[in-house]
Amino acid sequence: MNPVELIIRKREDGALTEDEIVFLVESYTRGDLPDYQISAFLMAAFLNGLSRDEALALTRAMLNSGVVLDLSGVAGTKVDKHSTGGVGDKVSIALAPVVAAAGVPVPMISGRGLGHTGGTLDKLEAIPGLRTDLTIAEYTSQLADIGLVMIGQTDEIAPADRKLYALRDVTGTVEYIPFIASSIMSKKLAEGIDGLVLDVKWGRGAFMRDEGKARKLAETLVGIANDYGKSAVAWLTDMNDPLGYAIGNWPETREAIACLHGESVIEVSTLVEVLAGEMIWLGGKASSAAEGREVAREMLSSGKALAKFSEMVIRQGGDPRVVEDPDVMTAPTIAVDVHASSSGTIDGIDPYQLGRVAVDLGAGRLAVTDEVDPMAGITLLKKPGDSVQQNEAIARLQTLRRDRIETAAARIAECFSFGAGASDRSLMADRYVNGDWTGESVPA
Amino acid sequence: MNPVELIIRKREDGALTEDEIVFLVESYTRGDLPDYQISAFLMAAFLNGLSRDEALALTRAMLNSGVVLDLSGVAGTKVDKHSTGGVGDKVSIALAPVVAAAGVPVPMISGRGLGHTGGTLDKLEAIPGLRTDLTIAEYTSQLADIGLVMIGQTDEIAPADRKLYALRDVTGTVEYIPFIASSIMSKKLAEGIDGLVLDVKWGRGAFMRDEGKARKLAETLVGIANDYGKSAVAWLTDMNDPLGYAIGNWPETREAIACLHGESVIEVSTLVEVLAGEMIWLGGKASSAAEGREVAREMLSSGKALAKFSEMVIRQGGDPRVVEDPDVMTAPTIAVDVHASSSGTIDGIDPYQLGRVAVDLGAGRLAVTDEVDPMAGITLLKKPGDSVQQNEAIARLQTLRRDRIETAAARIAECFSFGAGASDRSLMADRYVNGDWTGESVPA
Repeated sequence: MNPVELIIRKREDGALTEDEIVFLVESYTRGDLPDYQISAFLMAAFLNGLSRDEALALTRAMLNSGVVLDLSGVAGTKVDKHSTGGVGDKVSIALAPVVAAAGVPVPMISGRGLGHTGGTLDKLEAIPGLRTDLTIAEYTSQLADIGLVMIGQTDEIAPADRKLYALRDVTGTVEYIPFIASSIMSKKLAEGIDGLVLDVKWGRGAFMRDEGKARKLAETLVGIANDYGKSAVAWLTDMNDPLGYAIGNWPETREAIACLHGESVIEVSTLVEVLAGEMIWLGGKASSAAEGREVAREMLSSGKALAKFSEMVIRQGGDPRVVEDPDVMTAPTIAVDVHASSSGTIDGIDPYQLGRVAVDLGAGRLAVTDEVDPMAGITLLKKPGDSVQQNEAIARLQTLRRDRIETAAARIAECFSFGAGASDRSLMADRYVNGDWTGESVPA
Repeated sequence: MNPVELIIRKREDGALTEDEIVFLVESYTRGDLPDYQISAFLMAAFLNGLSRDEALALTRAMLNSGVVLDLSGVAGTKVDKHSTGGVGDKVSIALAPVVAAAGVPVPMISGRGLGHTGGTLDKLEAIPGLRTDLTIAEYTSQLADIGLVMIGQTDEIAPADRKLYALRDVTGTVEYIPFIASSIMSKKLAEGIDGLVLDVKWGRGAFMRDEGKARKLAETLVGIANDYGKSAVAWLTDMNDPLGYAIGNWPETREAIACLHGESVIEVSTLVEVLAGEMIWLGGKASSAAEGREVAREMLSSGKALAKFSEMVIRQGGDPRVVEDPDVMTAPTIAVDVHASSSGTIDGIDPYQLGRVAVDLGAGRLAVTDEVDPMAGITLLKKPGDSVQQNEAIARLQTLRRDRIETAAARIAECFSFGAGASDRSLMADRYVNGDWTGESVPA
């Protein structure tokens, strides 16, 4: 096959066959096709579009570029959850043990944070000693033994996606739904799952700022999962304000642990219960998502979810004492309060800017090679709807970067906007299942 | 400047400033910007379009990437001609000496053939001993001394265009009018000319198969020339059949020399006279293009054009005996006649396929590093409108590649189609000057 002919066909808005897409992806991954030809193809596909068949072929090509795990030896219906990423999104850490405690095996492979959003892997690794670099054999046997495993992406899974994503990142071809969907799904399908729950976020702190595009992404993700014979549900959720109070790796893990201790954490507990309910339903341990949500609440209130999390932490080499009592966590940090610059009722807190300040404090990365400080981050003391007085403490920052504190505090204060109070948007705005939006919504 | 932001702006159909386009071109030419970013930008520009200002900025950036010759020390209005390329197009070789003989200095920098079309440089070099690799000092002094110089592109002229063209060639971004126009004009403007005559070809043997696109290209080329303060005229000419009888380097040079000897060669003589007339007019040696055409005829019939060509050949080290009498040319070759596969009136000869066969016989290149055989090529014995009997000789091929003869002869015979006879299309279909199409046309 001639790659230039394939580029020209897409440029002229024609369709490529599955074999042709596999040829492009395989040749590129092997190093036989240069970056500049693939980047021209990606831009042509971005602007002229990929059909559903082409997006499916792209997913398949990336999936088959690496190892596809076989979990058929593990009993039960294996279900995972994926979030498109937000600021303060620690939901997976509390959710996975809830679902596993209910008897649905959860094989979770997560990524690291990059840019303004964090990553589950960095948050988990804030627990002293916890390993996320298990071998595939360790991953499979741990899942069989305790029904829960949370690790990082290995080099063996979907290497084509890693190479293509790196190229998209530097060629202005990131924000195209079929690319995003095939990237997500090639990694998730490689995990060996039977079902998947998707948290597709929209709003100023999300990857998709526009609600319509987030809906389209949800439909594409569920469509690809279904085409692979996997059951899938997507929720469209609001990411116009940070989730919960904590932003940063240990601060967020600590908040997830509070959830597992049965505390009700604004927004976070709701997302954990609803999404866990979907997973328990898909995993066959409830007859509906609503019933699954009841099971999830029972797992939280009974302490079974917390116990499952401790079991996982111990198995992966982590210190279970910080799960039992997060206050025993000791690591150096400087904590400074941020004060309100004016009085009024908070109507919003800009998650995008807050996420960028958190990176600046050491909580995240601008480049994949950056190190993160587990203690760094921001804890909100006020949320939208709260009234504050000028100079009242509204947030607390933690960092080891003494020279950043003053600028960061000023930037955090600017993230708060005052006015009419909290919006009446639903935290969970709509639900997509079996090819339809159900119109269901859930308040915070 | 951030190249990814510029790529994304063009992807979103936004406009780039001149500084931004210069940044992209300069960084790329220096090697500071990778191929994959420029190829993504080129595809976005191809699909979303470049404005007239952006195309002008691209031309300027490529022009200024190299040496811009200063011919202000040479008296007279310097005029060149550019053809977008066809099969059998030997017009420049006869045209330039006609114009120079009329007192208009012609500084001509030409390219080599690639693909199915030939290049003036290869044709000229078929003259034994003739050098086309003059230094810039030699080029300037020869123009001042005899008013005529024909050389090849040097590495110093528009290096950005060379690098960008090579990238476009392998990324499916060749056929976009603003790219084609800026590539042509950056090289022509670097020559130091005052005026330019453009032969923009359309049809199945041309780069632009579609007449409408050729018109658009003509308008863009003349527009850029005018924006640079250069006078320019474009003719839209027919390239649905080969020009004249000869295809191949020496066969074509020989046909051009026949023209200079005062012979009337079908199509070729007409193009030479009309285009020379335009150049003589732009060069201020006639009060109109029509009067220029009369001057051109006088230069041909008086032998002055032939004498000027001989003068140039001698100055550039070539053997003037083959100009005086082309029959003295000696070089090994095998000549074989091609016979008609059926009887009838010829209504067309496919120039694209014929050009490809000529390459296969050794007359051209598939890769820039291929060597050419000056003697190789095809001479038509019949033209559209002629009636032939089955098995009558219709063409003669010449090659050193004995193993290609049989296949080539069969392919050449297939290029002839029989039917209603020659079409009534005009050889020269329309003329673009001062921002308007004049509707003038010229038959063969």
